[in-house]
Amino acid sequence: MVQDSTIEEINVVMQEAWQAFHQYRQQSLSQRSIFIRTIALELEALGDELLRVASAETNLPEARLRNERNRTIFQLSSYADACEQGSWLEARIDTAIPDRNPPRVDIRKMMIPLGPVVVFGASNFPFAYSTAGGDTASAFAAGCTVVVKAHPAHAQTSDLVAGAIFKAADICKMPKGIFAHVHGTGHEVGRALVTHPYTKAVGFTGSYTGGKALFEWGNQRKEPIPVFAEMGSVNPVFLLPEKLQQSAEDLARMVVGSVTLGVGQFCTNPGLIIAMEGEPLQRFLQILALEVKNVNPGTMLHPGIAKGYTEKRASALSQRDVDTIAVSSAGASPNQGVPTIASASAQAFLNNPVLHEEVFGPYSIVIRCKDIKEMIEVARHTEGQLTCSVMATDNDLLANADLVEALKNICGRFIVNNVPTGVEVCLSMHHGGPYPATTDSRFTSVGADAIKRFARPICLQNWSDILLPDELKNENPFGIWRTVNNELTKDAIK
Amino acid sequence: MVQDSTIEEINVVMQEAWQAFHQYRQQSLSQRSIFIRTIALELEALGDELLRVASAETNLPEARLRNERNRTIFQLSSYADACEQGSWLEARIDTAIPDRNPPRVDIRKMMIPLGPVVVFGASNFPFAYSTAGGDTASAFAAGCTVVVKAHPAHAQTSDLVAGAIFKAADICKMPKGIFAHVHGTGHEVGRALVTHPYTKAVGFTGSYTGGKALFEWGNQRKEPIPVFAEMGSVNPVFLLPEKLQQSAEDLARMVVGSVTLGVGQFCTNPGLIIAMEGEPLQRFLQILALEVKNVNPGTMLHPGIAKGYTEKRASALSQRDVDTIAVSSAGASPNQGVPTIASASAQAFLNNPVLHEEVFGPYSIVIRCKDIKEMIEVARHTEGQLTCSVMATDNDLLANADLVEALKNICGRFIVNNVPTGVEVCLSMHHGGPYPATTDSRFTSVGADAIKRFARPICLQNWSDILLPDELKNENPFGIWRTVNNELTKDAIK
Repeated sequence: MVQDSTIEEINVVMQEAWQAFHQYRQQSLSQRSIFIRTIALELEALGDELLRVASAETNLPEARLRNERNRTIFQLSSYADACEQGSWLEARIDTAIPDRNPPRVDIRKMMIPLGPVVVFGASNFPFAYSTAGGDTASAFAAGCTVVVKAHPAHAQTSDLVAGAIFKAADICKMPKGIFAHVHGTGHEVGRALVTHPYTKAVGFTGSYTGGKALFEWGNQRKEPIPVFAEMGSVNPVFLLPEKLQQSAEDLARMVVGSVTLGVGQFCTNPGLIIAMEGEPLQRFLQILALEVKNVNPGTMLHPGIAKGYTEKRASALSQRDVDTIAVSSAGASPNQGVPTIASASAQAFLNNPVLHEEVFGPYSIVIRCKDIKEMIEVARHTEGQLTCSVMATDNDLLANADLVEALKNICGRFIVNNVPTGVEVCLSMHHGGPYPATTDSRFTSVGADAIKRFARPICLQNWSDILLPDELKNENPFGIWRTVNNELTKDAIK
Repeated sequence: MVQDSTIEEINVVMQEAWQAFHQYRQQSLSQRSIFIRTIALELEALGDELLRVASAETNLPEARLRNERNRTIFQLSSYADACEQGSWLEARIDTAIPDRNPPRVDIRKMMIPLGPVVVFGASNFPFAYSTAGGDTASAFAAGCTVVVKAHPAHAQTSDLVAGAIFKAADICKMPKGIFAHVHGTGHEVGRALVTHPYTKAVGFTGSYTGGKALFEWGNQRKEPIPVFAEMGSVNPVFLLPEKLQQSAEDLARMVVGSVTLGVGQFCTNPGLIIAMEGEPLQRFLQILALEVKNVNPGTMLHPGIAKGYTEKRASALSQRDVDTIAVSSAGASPNQGVPTIASASAQAFLNNPVLHEEVFGPYSIVIRCKDIKEMIEVARHTEGQLTCSVMATDNDLLANADLVEALKNICGRFIVNNVPTGVEVCLSMHHGGPYPATTDSRFTSVGADAIKRFARPICLQNWSDILLPDELKNENPFGIWRTVNNELTKDAIK
């Protein structure tokens, strides 16, 4: 059993993170990248033992955890590549025009790190969104030091991964305090971390309640700080008429697969399915029901999550005008999540905010619309989402431009004919979205643009070339992309 | 006398801004740019009458206002250029890899507008940071509709400029509601605008008290929204030893010019001058005192600003261990700001938070340090700033790397051997800085990067080329820069 960190310990940790920041921020992009890649190597070197510990703590199968570790290693190495490649620095140079009246002086700008970043790991991704996950990798790439609060549901896994980071820091001769790992089961530790004066930004993945609390603590400080909280969503899937007519059965199988994947424990789990009434929807529902009955309940991440699912599901199913379409026919053991599909009319959905809430687990509700007008109404009255999906032919999309525009307005990722689960790690990914999906729709927590959450521009006016950071020197020694006098170029400045 | 808008009027205005948003966001970059350039033309067409009205309302000389209008026109046209050029869209494309296991689908990302933006004009820049100023221009470039609350101190000027925007909207056949102009003397109108559910972002330039209030209203909404408030700063100027030894007299003249420019009514006014004790500082202070005595008091923007200056100045001068070095020797009429220089020891500064506060007007305090260690202490204990300046030889900077690093950490713009007043409008400019200079150090309110405050990414997964926005289509019809499979290119995708 791990012990909660004390306030005194947190003060020491933040003091060290602050001191280390002043050294680490001066390290080159290449030094930062080597450090991040070394973390990836050390994470791999933890071998199967890490998977066993994580599986015991989270009830996730080892095969899934092996994939997640691979993804985490890929994430670390792709953020290291992006860090070194330097586009995220947004280097901009406007050279002097001495003969202008008044003369223009030389002005150059690039990104620098914010300061120590506090990272809160997610229960459902013990590797990819936890100790050495995307938040940590992007903060290190930006030049920030990192303090991770381990998720109490996988504290030992987090200790092992933290060990890999400490080892990498040691190998790369990083300053003491570049990384710290603390434990806390209650709110006190989190609050002390977020409100500490040396904390300059926060990364979080988890529940709305948790993210909202951190966001408010961050804003209420004497010096407010950016808190990026990814708080999940219901990820609506819209079934458009021509596509539904053509492929009701295939769509039903696809949706059930996505709803029940990993016992439904993904931020991108499709919790809302919207379609128009009619014979194609009947076919869809029939297969949906058959398929759901055949999916076995699965053990959830921890008893708190299982209890939350059972209660939220019961509450949703007991709402007026909600029908239960299908429930897994296998018996469920304690702490298991039972795959469940409900249904309600668009009017019931529009009139009842409870039906808009995320039920974290293998649950989804089908909303039946009378016509496209009602479907657009549903889209317009749905809160901010990480993703919206449409199952549609090109004809469907061309014929329903109003729906498409309404959906663009509420989501961070807009998917055609794919399910929302499965978040590719690449530069074009956006894992974010309008509130309440996240606390700031302008940032992502997946893909190398995630680095930008933890960096800010600094403008250097009238500096001698010799004193400028290498990234902004005339000769462009690292050959990075820079905007020079409004033109993107890798060229040196003559 | 203009009338305050009522809550009912604000509801109508926001409703129209929301409806217009859904049309305007679909307009092409080129349509948006033409609209912004038309505003510039209409602003120019207001002729000298606008300058006369503005001068009567603000007490600013017509010559200064003529320059400011030119700057505003340049700002509009340069943001229009940036809008059209499209780099701010941060277009990213990762093409499908069907034979990967699992296959990768096509994923593309670009910026889209947040929604209606509420803009609060600044009293000290009736054109450049007001009705058709940088916030309005960047919001229109992003594809947002705009509601401006006129600054009550130049309501008629604001009405005239709003007229130019309405005319441009008319000429360009923009949707009704793309722009609105409301008046409010108290807090009620501002609060109603910021807390309205259809408001999706706020831009503000002004006082700390005002900016902080908007920031809190924005955060406390059911759906929090980004509030970018630029709240001014004291803009410390550090005089390093070798430079001070060489150029004490020239530096003194330069500093006085900057402190008293425009009756000191700039966010970038240097309110804090830090130097080491000794003979060079004596020479500097001697010239500083002579020069300040020769600068006449000037009429301030409005009686409230003049009253604030008189009170803040009196409070600063009455602090323990603060000496008055020099005061303008000319008599002052009511509502004039009297140029004043004070002085205090580093220890007095470190122990008294009042000396850290902005005194908005032609006032500055010289902080005397015993040694470089004390100077670094002062740097480390200074709050977030829009700018820091160092007057220094290259030797000074090379010998004082710790001071340089400490300053990088607290400011948005770091200037060598220039005064902070005078903010160039160019892409490399950063007009922002750590709190309390602004509410979010990651964004700027000057330069085309200001557009990014009002835009967010959307990721389009698995879309047919024909349905993608033109900016993301394979053929790249507008020839914008895009990152395709991690490489920046303007090429079409084969």
